Amino acid sequence: MNDALDALFKPRAVALIGASAKELSIGNVIIKNLIHYRFNGPVYPINPKVDEIRGLKAYPSILDVPGEVDLAHIVIPPPFVPEEVENCGKKGIKAIIINTAGFKEMGAEGQALENDFLKRAAKYGIRIVGPNCQGIINSDPAINAYCNFTFTFPHPGHISVVAQSGGVGAVLMQAFHDMGVGQRMYASNGNGSDVSITEFISYYGKDEETRAIVLYAESLGNPLEFIEVVKKVTARKPVLAITAGRTDKGAEASRSHIGGLAGSISMDLIYKKAGILTFHNQEELCHAAVALSSQPVPKGNRVGIITNTGGPSVIAIDELVSCGLTLPPLSANAIETLKGTMLESASIRNPLDVVATAGPLHFRSALEVMMNEEQYDSIYLNFVTPPFVDCESVAREITSAARAGNKPVVCNYMTDKQEWRSTSAILKEGKIPCFDFAETAARALYSLVRYNSILSSEKGKIKLFADVEKERVRMILTDAHHQNREVLSAHDVYSILDAYKIPVAPWKVASDVKEVVYVAGQIGFPVVIKADSEQIIHKSDVGGVAVNIMTTAEANAAVEKMKSTLGGGMRFLVQKCLVPGRELIIGAKASPGTGPIIMFGLGGIFVEVLKDVAFAISPLSDTEASEMISSIKAAALINGFRGQKGINKAKTVEIIQRISMLCNDFPIIKELDLNPLFATGDDICVVDARIIL
Amino acid sequence: MNDALDALFKPRAVALIGASAKELSIGNVIIKNLIHYRFNGPVYPINPKVDEIRGLKAYPSILDVPGEVDLAHIVIPPPFVPEEVENCGKKGIKAIIINTAGFKEMGAEGQALENDFLKRAAKYGIRIVGPNCQGIINSDPAINAYCNFTFTFPHPGHISVVAQSGGVGAVLMQAFHDMGVGQRMYASNGNGSDVSITEFISYYGKDEETRAIVLYAESLGNPLEFIEVVKKVTARKPVLAITAGRTDKGAEASRSHIGGLAGSISMDLIYKKAGILTFHNQEELCHAAVALSSQPVPKGNRVGIITNTGGPSVIAIDELVSCGLTLPPLSANAIETLKGTMLESASIRNPLDVVATAGPLHFRSALEVMMNEEQYDSIYLNFVTPPFVDCESVAREITSAARAGNKPVVCNYMTDKQEWRSTSAILKEGKIPCFDFAETAARALYSLVRYNSILSSEKGKIKLFADVEKERVRMILTDAHHQNREVLSAHDVYSILDAYKIPVAPWKVASDVKEVVYVAGQIGFPVVIKADSEQIIHKSDVGGVAVNIMTTAEANAAVEKMKSTLGGGMRFLVQKCLVPGRELIIGAKASPGTGPIIMFGLGGIFVEVLKDVAFAISPLSDTEASEMISSIKAAALINGFRGQKGINKAKTVEIIQRISMLCNDFPIIKELDLNPLFATGDDICVVDARIIL
Repeated sequence: MNDALDALFKPRAVALIGASAKELSIGNVIIKNLIHYRFNGPVYPINPKVDEIRGLKAYPSILDVPGEVDLAHIVIPPPFVPEEVENCGKKGIKAIIINTAGFKEMGAEGQALENDFLKRAAKYGIRIVGPNCQGIINSDPAINAYCNFTFTFPHPGHISVVAQSGGVGAVLMQAFHDMGVGQRMYASNGNGSDVSITEFISYYGKDEETRAIVLYAESLGNPLEFIEVVKKVTARKPVLAITAGRTDKGAEASRSHIGGLAGSISMDLIYKKAGILTFHNQEELCHAAVALSSQPVPKGNRVGIITNTGGPSVIAIDELVSCGLTLPPLSANAIETLKGTMLESASIRNPLDVVATAGPLHFRSALEVMMNEEQYDSIYLNFVTPPFVDCESVAREITSAARAGNKPVVCNYMTDKQEWRSTSAILKEGKIPCFDFAETAARALYSLVRYNSILSSEKGKIKLFADVEKERVRMILTDAHHQNREVLSAHDVYSILDAYKIPVAPWKVASDVKEVVYVAGQIGFPVVIKADSEQIIHKSDVGGVAVNIMTTAEANAAVEKMKSTLGGGMRFLVQKCLVPGRELIIGAKASPGTGPIIMFGLGGIFVEVLKDVAFAISPLSDTEASEMISSIKAAALINGFRGQKGINKAKTVEIIQRISMLCNDFPIIKELDLNPLFATGDDICVVDARIIL
Repeated sequence: MNDALDALFKPRAVALIGASAKELSIGNVIIKNLIHYRFNGPVYPINPKVDEIRGLKAYPSILDVPGEVDLAHIVIPPPFVPEEVENCGKKGIKAIIINTAGFKEMGAEGQALENDFLKRAAKYGIRIVGPNCQGIINSDPAINAYCNFTFTFPHPGHISVVAQSGGVGAVLMQAFHDMGVGQRMYASNGNGSDVSITEFISYYGKDEETRAIVLYAESLGNPLEFIEVVKKVTARKPVLAITAGRTDKGAEASRSHIGGLAGSISMDLIYKKAGILTFHNQEELCHAAVALSSQPVPKGNRVGIITNTGGPSVIAIDELVSCGLTLPPLSANAIETLKGTMLESASIRNPLDVVATAGPLHFRSALEVMMNEEQYDSIYLNFVTPPFVDCESVAREITSAARAGNKPVVCNYMTDKQEWRSTSAILKEGKIPCFDFAETAARALYSLVRYNSILSSEKGKIKLFADVEKERVRMILTDAHHQNREVLSAHDVYSILDAYKIPVAPWKVASDVKEVVYVAGQIGFPVVIKADSEQIIHKSDVGGVAVNIMTTAEANAAVEKMKSTLGGGMRFLVQKCLVPGRELIIGAKASPGTGPIIMFGLGGIFVEVLKDVAFAISPLSDTEASEMISSIKAAALINGFRGQKGINKAKTVEIIQRISMLCNDFPIIKELDLNPLFATGDDICVVDARIIL
């Protein structure tokens, strides 16, 4: 055993504690499945009341089993589980799948039982899958382990699945099976009390035969570890995930189902940070996994199309172009060659319509030419099986021409699968991923392009700024913390921003009218005067902000008015009134289990009406910060528009990175809001800010 | 025969002109298909060189056929087609499917042949399908007509398909077949030289057994007629369409393929106007058709969820909520009832998790309770088949409880279809639409809700304003037309707007400096001065606009500068300089075959950066105009935002309707642009406008 999980996925013998002779019981179904899948080792049913189950000798206790056992299932009621884990330890068992439900998810009592069996397992070095789970499958013909109570029996392949929800896992497994696509390993770990999703992905990552990993999770125990580990996996092979709980209602069902915590936004961001391909749609994910596990990664987004029917080509182009793929024209050379090899009615361009009557040699030539054209990174194929064409030979030519090249090929294969079974078999044998619809095939091709973008994307650098005054910030935050202040005063907020060299509109604090007038003179009119008190969060709503103060008299009047409205005792923040530029917003929010989540957007209506903002998990590299900026819908405004100059992107990236560093350095900061910043000419400057602990 | 198309869809006998003994030829495949599908009448192969084909006696000419013939296929080369059409006429044939390609789509010669056969067909009252097409199918067991060379043999059902592209039609037919769903009629009419898509839809509309109509078209011959006819069909049964050619590349492929003209935007708008449900995805359309052809229409968007597995319920809720459906909670009564009937571990709320071990009676009770709850319009069901549950009985209870209610039910049915064949058969027999994924089932349910919205939407009134001065506009446009002016002068444009009572910022025209100063005084400073010449379209780019002119001296200077920059000979438009309000844009564009396309949006960046505009085909009802306004993404701004007052919606609706009327009254107007209008307080006023003939 090379790995802690080998005992789980490559057990030499499996025992089932709680085996049952009753046909419709989990304790019987698992035995049935192990036999049906031809498990390559002994299976020991454990049941003190019967002698045999499904032809296998049953033993009263795990301790009575004669041979060595690597893996045990436990399907007995929760109160008896800890003791059986103890017995497994004595027996030398290394991995246990606890299928039984009724632990942590049922409250304190269940949590206590879970803690109990975990302690005992740790004592013996046993790894636990579950509780409240299905188990695992390994289709390796040398193993054939079906340690699971589900009903789909995958044949060997290159896709491995890990799912927190067994329901979703089973659907994905069934979908691959229905497509005639093999699978490698499967795991559903329910409550995930011990072996984590991260460990499963890491294990699949090391498995040579696994070429694509499929993930469904509703929460992650340790997101930071997840990101670190999975990032390394996704650099070598694709990981595909469904993002569950996108809407609030979905998130609510998810939370109450498994007791998870992570919100929907942060799951998406965690996946992005880990280099995972995310999908909102299970079927699309399955199609992508089929393409990614069988085809080379394309070098770019340029696609050549070959078709023997018109309409589906229109639909394919719609989808491909919507996904950002391009269709470069054929070279003059290629056109010349194809004029000699195609039928007269063929349309020689990209898309190349070989027409419905095209035979094997037309398809071969079409594929060969496109494979050799430098300007195509991948080939999209529409292949309908006309009843007046020798389709088997066409399929043979397609597969051999595809194999000869090193570009990915995906096929929209339109046929009656019963009638054209032999043709289908040839395409399958030739590893051409075939889909039933033009859009579907196009999106599968797009997933290959997306994975190439992940592989080839610049990671950038996480800059640690040496000029920040950490100690000064620490003192301010410690004071506030000791005084139980959750909302920082403007003075504290601007001091913190100053310490981290984040440009703020010139400001001073004054304690009375006289000082206000004095510092306003120093700063220079026009100024803004703000009542500075921790008690007032939305200052402008209560008359705590006076803008565009032009003279000493106006300053006097403004302060008097605030005092009479808000009562005395507060200080005043006097700030330079800047010429309004393009408004920006930058925010940060602590996120349990990960670095703070950073937000960027254009201010005002862009945030509040159009919700046009970008999020990312810190720490942020310059590339990530830059991507945030260019990913908003109104990004064109940032580059300048209608004669208006754009904003200084380099300075924006730096401010985002400094905020990221600040919030990483001080996790006590729960929320930070720079809203707005003004971008005027080449300058960017914070005009208002808030920090909440 | 009650209908011109009865001869086509219910032929008593079919002849095939160009029948062939060669197995891989269209002339043979069609004979094979007619026999295989058990056509309920004689089939006459026509071929002067052989005596029999596939066991059927062949005749040298259609004129030699002994019995009456309603329908003939013609598969011979184009030059021979017109004469055979003539012969068909002599024989008394009423409908012909011309499968042969090589007519209009190949240029002038082909067009001449097409005209020739059309003239002959008209003489005899023959209807033509094609050329360059597949043909038709009618699965009515009394007919069994497979007059088509495709390879899928649908069993009887309630979905009828009409496709311009046979390739797409065949894919859709195959998809229904693969899902085990029956079909009613099928037609693919290729070039559509005679029988139009509109006629097919109208025919399906009258067919009792057709409950959902599926359409794929790349262009429409007569969009106005299409809208009028199809609107009446969609009021009775759903029509579902794929919108092809969404992207420019897609539209390009579409145009060159079939010779169609309609652009992608206008197809979408035509479909919307006709009450068609549009889809960008064939598979989603197929799923929707299955739900719509088998389930009642829900009364609203409130859904109750029953599930026996957790994760798929999270995914379903995500999708349903994203689609705008709501999940009202269970009533107190329902909770009480369910407490008595559910398993202890069940989660009694909406979603109702009956848990994996739930048996037949748990499902029955769950469905009965939800069916009786007034607050649900439809039921979504997640049903995985656990190996430890009597799933056949569950299926039986589901179908009987569903039948007893009058609400639609859709099911995400998660199973191995081979192993659970008998369970699947029960659900199918019970007309429960079953889908493989939670999202897929959710979106099928959503299509039912969409159709309900179409049925129940207010149509509104198309107002014909009595106060417009049509004659005045006619004179201006006639003059411009006679003088070959394509771009109207500002004077003409504003006069036209005045004539249609569209509010314009006060304006006067002046021919020299003296007049400018005089009228500026009359209008009142500040004013805008614009050089008014048909030669200058983008005035501001060439110095032809001077804004914010405050005094006589400034007016003098501005006019002199324009004269020196632009040369003499132009007039000047002097216009009141309004306080900038919220900018709006309203436009219109002539569209071949339909009423003009009207556009609405917020001006500036909302149009130019965010492309946030709405389109619709005129004439527009008040409801349609109002929907345009509320359909833009930034609609919240229209209702007011951050203390800023919203715009006057009633006035905006009126202006849109007046523009719609203007462009309908004068189709000579190619493009009209009100950009911007200023919405200030309760007023809305055109500030700049352009009309192009």
